Amino acid sequence: MLFKEITILNKDLEIEKDMYVAVEADRITYIGKTRPDGDFGREYDGRNRLLMPAFYNAHAHSPMALMRGYGENLALQDWLNTRIFPFEDKLDSNAVYWGTMLCMAESLRFGIVSSSDMYYFVPDMVRAVAESGAKANISRAIANPMGAPFESLPSLQEAKDAAAQFNGYADGRIIIDTSLHAEYTSNEETARGVAALAKETGTIMHVHLSETRLEHEECKMRHGGMTPAQYFESCGLFDGPALAAHCVWCEDEDLEILKKHGVVAASNPVSNLKLASGICPAAKMLQMGITVAIGTDSVSSNNNLNFMEEIKTFAALAKVKEMDPTLITPKEALYAATAAGAKAQGRTDCGVLAAGNKADLILVRTDVPNMHPVHSMINNLVYAAVPGDIVMTMADGKVLYENGEYTSIDLEKTIFEAQAATDHILHQL
Amino acid sequence: MLFKEITILNKDLEIEKDMYVAVEADRITYIGKTRPDGDFGREYDGRNRLLMPAFYNAHAHSPMALMRGYGENLALQDWLNTRIFPFEDKLDSNAVYWGTMLCMAESLRFGIVSSSDMYYFVPDMVRAVAESGAKANISRAIANPMGAPFESLPSLQEAKDAAAQFNGYADGRIIIDTSLHAEYTSNEETARGVAALAKETGTIMHVHLSETRLEHEECKMRHGGMTPAQYFESCGLFDGPALAAHCVWCEDEDLEILKKHGVVAASNPVSNLKLASGICPAAKMLQMGITVAIGTDSVSSNNNLNFMEEIKTFAALAKVKEMDPTLITPKEALYAATAAGAKAQGRTDCGVLAAGNKADLILVRTDVPNMHPVHSMINNLVYAAVPGDIVMTMADGKVLYENGEYTSIDLEKTIFEAQAATDHILHQL
Repeated sequence: MLFKEITILNKDLEIEKDMYVAVEADRITYIGKTRPDGDFGREYDGRNRLLMPAFYNAHAHSPMALMRGYGENLALQDWLNTRIFPFEDKLDSNAVYWGTMLCMAESLRFGIVSSSDMYYFVPDMVRAVAESGAKANISRAIANPMGAPFESLPSLQEAKDAAAQFNGYADGRIIIDTSLHAEYTSNEETARGVAALAKETGTIMHVHLSETRLEHEECKMRHGGMTPAQYFESCGLFDGPALAAHCVWCEDEDLEILKKHGVVAASNPVSNLKLASGICPAAKMLQMGITVAIGTDSVSSNNNLNFMEEIKTFAALAKVKEMDPTLITPKEALYAATAAGAKAQGRTDCGVLAAGNKADLILVRTDVPNMHPVHSMINNLVYAAVPGDIVMTMADGKVLYENGEYTSIDLEKTIFEAQAATDHILHQL
Repeated sequence: MLFKEITILNKDLEIEKDMYVAVEADRITYIGKTRPDGDFGREYDGRNRLLMPAFYNAHAHSPMALMRGYGENLALQDWLNTRIFPFEDKLDSNAVYWGTMLCMAESLRFGIVSSSDMYYFVPDMVRAVAESGAKANISRAIANPMGAPFESLPSLQEAKDAAAQFNGYADGRIIIDTSLHAEYTSNEETARGVAALAKETGTIMHVHLSETRLEHEECKMRHGGMTPAQYFESCGLFDGPALAAHCVWCEDEDLEILKKHGVVAASNPVSNLKLASGICPAAKMLQMGITVAIGTDSVSSNNNLNFMEEIKTFAALAKVKEMDPTLITPKEALYAATAAGAKAQGRTDCGVLAAGNKADLILVRTDVPNMHPVHSMINNLVYAAVPGDIVMTMADGKVLYENGEYTSIDLEKTIFEAQAATDHILHQL
């Protein structure tokens, strides 16, 4: 495929006009001012279009899509105890498959090609993601609220099986991560065991960190004053590559720990607002040189995967948190949504528009009123674009979504099956 | 026009399925479970569509669209002094007309049919809004930073002319409001004079109130401890119908004043984040029984008119401000976006889906992944819908926007002329 005379967001996250971009097989093979020699198949007229890296969602729980809008306006514990946990208790392979597929359809519509997706029923998640053509770093969340012997945990065996069976699956589109669910849902043996598992399997550690004030403060009471970040560090969770979701209540010392170990922080701005968890200190993290990526969290707390909304909210919330409108540049916000997310997923050849990288791309239309006038296209992209402006999403060189149509997903069937699986669960409650 | 077997958001902001809704001339003439007798012209198949009241934008400065993305990441005073004021100094009729038209195109795409629009060059704003088929409450903002004699102000004469010439123009689509810009840009004679003007002309008072902490605290220093709300009350600004924009730093006593006088508060959640102004106490206002509407503010600080984003941010911010996820129900958020906005504009026959009311309607498609599954359609509408789901916008019974096309606006010409007017100004700076 050849994009002709198109505006691009280049590898330095700067705008270049009238460019040619060639995609062959799964990679970008050419970016330049002149037309490359050769036949690239389909040619795309780049007028009124901007080509940029697709989005990498750094924190998701896709199958929870089935609980979208299920119980709004409840306090967190009410919501979990009366809605989420009873529903999850009835989940099965079929439900997880269709919930994940629904999220892949929504992700592609909103420009997300890859998600760091923590949940269970991993084989069903893998199947849906692989079939959709999208990518994911999938982890079997390990929790141990009752303090069972670590080696006896079924989730441990599932995590081991997932790593053995699916790491690198579907031409590398599927990567298996290791996940400790959180400090407050496990004990020290479990935390240390999960850290050892990540080392043993050479996988990325994905963990919830200081999402709520309660979680953060109770950890300190339970662990002799140690914050979740300090406790995790002491358990070895940050010895290898790690992704910490939320980080809302991280203290300055915690940020030093993230920085020291190169832990990527995944900010989930919309979910953190909606659950009234708080506002992540993203500006401070960036100033310290911590890599900050952006996540949607699950749509049961968000309630969609509108990544452009996440990007704008990420930047705007940082300003109001510090009462300083100069914080977080549009370029920093776009880096968080693309390259930082790819880095969180260990996808070194993704997230940047450069020849040789995987062709994970989105096309944004600019012939819409909200993208004019153009003082700065990058400002418009971060603050004025809407998801309806995304007209194409491509992963590994394959067009998966274009103008409302999917090439890999039967949307009507997915909506029907996701609703049927949801209804089936509700009837059991 | 007849909408057939369609899901609606009814007058109580509840969902009803399989309804018939007839529109004749500028009004809704029938809502019922059965097909009404008669020929209504075009028939619209309501499958996978939700019909609801259009949005009323309670605070806007449309011509500022020309400054979209012009100077991001600047401190407020820098931004005003180095970007906004010099640019505004070069505005002319042509620029204001095309800036307003661009905003009307964007408004219709995002489901807004009417805006409380405070600026200057009123005749040019009126012309653009009238031609677009949309509605607006337009006010000539009166400021007097140098303390000139009130009666000598050219803006006063312009405001009087606007009220005489345009109040009720275009079949009532145009309403003229009266506007004092703000406490910090005027003196007491001006504030009292503008209050008298509103009484004299029987118009709604539209004013900026406690947007920033600085404005709020400096007012107290200037006026013997009186907050902007107390000062405005003392000047008579709240004696008639009034609309107070922002209200971010309102204290409890201020809210009592708004409540006592029936002042409608316009919350501008996204602009307040992006300018790092703060978070409006919307939940508290609603608990006190104050009518709260939603505004976009100008796109130079927002940077778009994505009203679905405003609604979601409005609800989510209230939760995080009070650290309580139970605050602001989806129904309250939708009321703020529709009926409360219409009330702020004195449009008593708008904002509610009821027979006899003006047909100001939007159609939202539901056959998209982000609107499924359906546990609660109203939850999905507030938290999961995106602007691309709006497939039709109708004002006074006329379809103005449908599936990306406009019936009243030449979008390509508008984008071209808005850019040309912008470039013309930039060349003079």
